Amino acid sequence: MKVLVINCGSSSLKYQLIDSDSEDVLAKGLCERIGIDGRLVYEKAGMDKEITEAPMPTHKEAIQMVLDALVNEKSGAVKSLKEIDAVGHRVVHGGEKFAASAKVDDAMIQALEECSELAPLHNPANLIGIRVCQELMPGVPMVGCFDTAFHQTMPEKAYLYAIPVEYYEDYHIRKYGFHGTSHSFVSKEAISFLGLDPENSKVIVCHLGNGASISAVKNGKCVDTSMGLTPLAGLAMGTRSGDLDPAVVEFLGKKLNLDAEGVLQILNKKSGVYGLSRGVSSDFRDLTSAAENGNHDAKVALEVFEYRVATTVGAYVAAMNGVDAIAFTAGIGEHDGRIRTAVCEYLGYLGVKIDEEKNAKSGDNEVISTPDSGVKVCVIPTNEELAICRDTVAIVNA
Amino acid sequence: MKVLVINCGSSSLKYQLIDSDSEDVLAKGLCERIGIDGRLVYEKAGMDKEITEAPMPTHKEAIQMVLDALVNEKSGAVKSLKEIDAVGHRVVHGGEKFAASAKVDDAMIQALEECSELAPLHNPANLIGIRVCQELMPGVPMVGCFDTAFHQTMPEKAYLYAIPVEYYEDYHIRKYGFHGTSHSFVSKEAISFLGLDPENSKVIVCHLGNGASISAVKNGKCVDTSMGLTPLAGLAMGTRSGDLDPAVVEFLGKKLNLDAEGVLQILNKKSGVYGLSRGVSSDFRDLTSAAENGNHDAKVALEVFEYRVATTVGAYVAAMNGVDAIAFTAGIGEHDGRIRTAVCEYLGYLGVKIDEEKNAKSGDNEVISTPDSGVKVCVIPTNEELAICRDTVAIVNA
Repeated sequence: MKVLVINCGSSSLKYQLIDSDSEDVLAKGLCERIGIDGRLVYEKAGMDKEITEAPMPTHKEAIQMVLDALVNEKSGAVKSLKEIDAVGHRVVHGGEKFAASAKVDDAMIQALEECSELAPLHNPANLIGIRVCQELMPGVPMVGCFDTAFHQTMPEKAYLYAIPVEYYEDYHIRKYGFHGTSHSFVSKEAISFLGLDPENSKVIVCHLGNGASISAVKNGKCVDTSMGLTPLAGLAMGTRSGDLDPAVVEFLGKKLNLDAEGVLQILNKKSGVYGLSRGVSSDFRDLTSAAENGNHDAKVALEVFEYRVATTVGAYVAAMNGVDAIAFTAGIGEHDGRIRTAVCEYLGYLGVKIDEEKNAKSGDNEVISTPDSGVKVCVIPTNEELAICRDTVAIVNA
Repeated sequence: MKVLVINCGSSSLKYQLIDSDSEDVLAKGLCERIGIDGRLVYEKAGMDKEITEAPMPTHKEAIQMVLDALVNEKSGAVKSLKEIDAVGHRVVHGGEKFAASAKVDDAMIQALEECSELAPLHNPANLIGIRVCQELMPGVPMVGCFDTAFHQTMPEKAYLYAIPVEYYEDYHIRKYGFHGTSHSFVSKEAISFLGLDPENSKVIVCHLGNGASISAVKNGKCVDTSMGLTPLAGLAMGTRSGDLDPAVVEFLGKKLNLDAEGVLQILNKKSGVYGLSRGVSSDFRDLTSAAENGNHDAKVALEVFEYRVATTVGAYVAAMNGVDAIAFTAGIGEHDGRIRTAVCEYLGYLGVKIDEEKNAKSGDNEVISTPDSGVKVCVIPTNEELAICRDTVAIVNA
């Protein structure tokens, strides 16, 4: 089966065409600056990247250009759109309605519209992508895969905030968690790669990228995760503050003469390691290099990041009363061995021991702990597109 | 030495007169409804409680009544005020200026005024108490003991929020932590009671009362604590939410048409287990009884409380890379064996084993773990007044 995976943002769109049998990526790329001017990046497997500047006033023109590129006589990945058997759409927020990927239908679209207030920057764009694909590829089955779905197995004690329960019932304020497709994929890969028992295993997934979150996965099911109502919560991130005393929102607002919305902008866009480093960077390579060159702010920013990863791991070990494996994934998790070591240095009490030779490698699934380590520690590259492709095939074939 | 300990709130005042040699409480009590009408409770050791209704338009009349009661011919604890050698004042917020208790002088008073914006409900009342005592007991040495002082040893990675570092420098926004007098007292007691090495020990103190906080104490120094800029942060409490996605402040404000200040009122006064239980109670005895009678909200509220205590303990074990002892204190921590058991059930991976017979006792310092437990778990009744008395004596004698 050939599955087109679409991840639609407000002014951009990422896509991959995947052969679900071989799990090979036949073509991939992105559209940028939709609604501004327009730029298509297209990369067929084994060929050079093609970049085309062309007007994309709406997502419709953007997706049309992607489809045209996929069937292009010279560089196309398929001969006709009829070869595309299904489309899998990434959707950020599925609220409490979707605990798993599901076929796109009118009821789903309505449910996503109802969830949009919980993810006002993302869900409307995701919905546009779904509608345009329905229009341009009529009759092709489509599946929605939710960032929140994997976390729907959390128990009440983990997802309820300690606020009046009426606000959960009336306004749906609770912890949802995000990066669920990645946490699901990586936890399953880790269980299989490490030979753990899916029904009797405790895995902690550290998805550390510019956005970062950790989840506790017990017997294959998520029991807690660090992001919350929104992707602002939890760890210190590239530009996001993560958790802080809620009173800071009021206190800082008064100081800066901003309302809560204005403060939230700062907490989302100007905070995290970027803000802690006095604007050195939100990129960990820059921060590491600055810290090595004696920049105290950059050094502290990295320490805060590492400390909060380690203490969140510690919290989730308690949540599950133990841990069998810790998996690092996403940009930093996969590629920054120094951060992995720094985090694991806090975890000696669990018997964690890192093999620095293995930790220096990167690219593929890798166990980075020593054979006598009390917990298996591994790197598992995430692949959200492949996860969406797999879910799409399973649902279309069901 | 006879030390008067004063804890001055906005409309109330608690006091104890302590003989620092024997550490006996000679008399204690409180003034309530200051500025409204006025009520003095006075209890001399070994005698019945006396309650006097009398007008207390300001703290001055209240403190004068306390002093009159202390020297009362019939029920007084001393013959003359001259017998009172020093006064120890509880002060909520010492900012970054005070890492230990200190003698009251003009510089301290000015520093506390500068800190008042960080604790607008508490510091002004504490300052009034200091000034009135200075006026009524001229020449008597006075000491300020700060709720924040013990936590000043936290490293940057623990006390800095992941927000632009300029907001820490310009507006002093950071984690301060509270209940420090209790965390200091209980951690010292635990180290001594358990025979740990003060210079080489890892202790976690769970101060669980209507306000609740946990601290990680490594080698006698606080390295992290769960309260933050204000006492709202951290655990779920009686009526306080503790940590949540900062975006909830904005989201809830929009729903309720409230500004951040209005939302903070709800998070401080209507949240926690009280809000989660749909208003059943903020008192754990009521909640436990409701949960036993089948009230689901009360049951979940208790589960949230226990879960967050356990995961915070887990986080601090990671922060210190291990733990030698866990000490429970304050109202719930000292008296609710069921909560202690529920928290410790999460901690089996640390080898924690509770002796339920010992756990059922309460009142005095008690080890409640079994001899083969991987971590010593104990109950240590807190005594903030005695801690203030000890600090006061040490500073006056220095």
